[in-house]
Amino acid sequence: MYQLVLIRHGESEWNAKNLFTGWTDVELTQKGRDEALQSAKALKEAGIELDLAYTSYLKRAIHTLNIVLDETDYDWLPVRKDWRLNERHYGALQGFNKKEKAEEYGEEQVHLWRRSFDVPPPPLSLDDPRHPRNDIRYKALKPEQLPACESLKDTIARMMPFITDELFPAIKEGRKIIISAHGNSLRALVKYLDNIPDSEIPGLEIPTGKAFIYELDEDLKPLKHYYL
Amino acid sequence: MYQLVLIRHGESEWNAKNLFTGWTDVELTQKGRDEALQSAKALKEAGIELDLAYTSYLKRAIHTLNIVLDETDYDWLPVRKDWRLNERHYGALQGFNKKEKAEEYGEEQVHLWRRSFDVPPPPLSLDDPRHPRNDIRYKALKPEQLPACESLKDTIARMMPFITDELFPAIKEGRKIIISAHGNSLRALVKYLDNIPDSEIPGLEIPTGKAFIYELDEDLKPLKHYYL
Repeated sequence: MYQLVLIRHGESEWNAKNLFTGWTDVELTQKGRDEALQSAKALKEAGIELDLAYTSYLKRAIHTLNIVLDETDYDWLPVRKDWRLNERHYGALQGFNKKEKAEEYGEEQVHLWRRSFDVPPPPLSLDDPRHPRNDIRYKALKPEQLPACESLKDTIARMMPFITDELFPAIKEGRKIIISAHGNSLRALVKYLDNIPDSEIPGLEIPTGKAFIYELDEDLKPLKHYYL
Repeated sequence: MYQLVLIRHGESEWNAKNLFTGWTDVELTQKGRDEALQSAKALKEAGIELDLAYTSYLKRAIHTLNIVLDETDYDWLPVRKDWRLNERHYGALQGFNKKEKAEEYGEEQVHLWRRSFDVPPPPLSLDDPRHPRNDIRYKALKPEQLPACESLKDTIARMMPFITDELFPAIKEGRKIIISAHGNSLRALVKYLDNIPDSEIPGLEIPTGKAFIYELDEDLKPLKHYYL
């Protein structure tokens, strides 16, 4: 039997301001740091063992992981940062207020962008400073790997190679893994693990401030999952 | 031309209490965190570019690196943690007060343990909880790799494969590297880079709170080095 621990980062500065964030690299608020500490304390009390961590290229997930590793005395744990664990790319909406965009485009359109399975938000142009090709952290990636915007379906598509080529082999090696990531990259993983239909996955909410534990059988089928 | 950035962690809780620390995993003090921030600000002002980080298995070096990466907006940087960058192992002296040990064994003996090239401190027994074989973070290593104590010479010996098989190939790939580590693991590296004789290396003090920059030619011979 294998175990997998998922942590969704808590409140960031732009969550607090009600802005579309996506790949924008914003900091956790004090509330977000407290949520990370809460997850960490629950893991510690449960005596969960770890030997490998994954996180995204975004500091709100990285800092969440750092807080968890420090509180559980796992600072030394190997950490692999992977861009595929990033939040869904919110395209040209990034940096704008959700309420203002609803006034501009209508509630229904914004709801589609936020909660549909396959409707992407408006894309960024290639020369927009917010486009990932203008960010040094993605310089090793191929141009076709870099999104100008993503629907949840697109996020799932780029998460799949991470799951099948990176995560699953590591689990099968017996590594006890923790992943600190974002609402939508974790949705992609949970969708795959639990075989959730396209129509239901946008409605799945993974809580922050908790650790989400999967127990998996030898074929990596979930035996059970629970929150700490 | 290649560039290499070295950071020596600042004050830890046991530095502040004048205890032998070695591989004991103690936290930075506020002063130590401030020193890390100072190094970070200097790197930022100098516009130093990075694309890979190394640190030890010990939280005082890891947290120093985290502070530096956060302040310079390099949170996303890949980090490789390597036990060979750990501080010198202080054997059975770990956890004891330096002044008390000087009263017990004499100033001269403690000076030899602290500042000679090849006199190791008294070893830990295999069943001592302080012995690295009783610490899960070293469980993947072979028993003969785990020191019960180390002279500076021993620390240099275990650093050499890190330098030749890990660090130098990465530099030659063109990676812009930062290393956050400890007084003696950094001494080992500086000794090798600058070809410093055995008799002189124990006297070399690398300051904390600064970044130590090497510029290296294509054969990795130092062209110059300076502190920021």
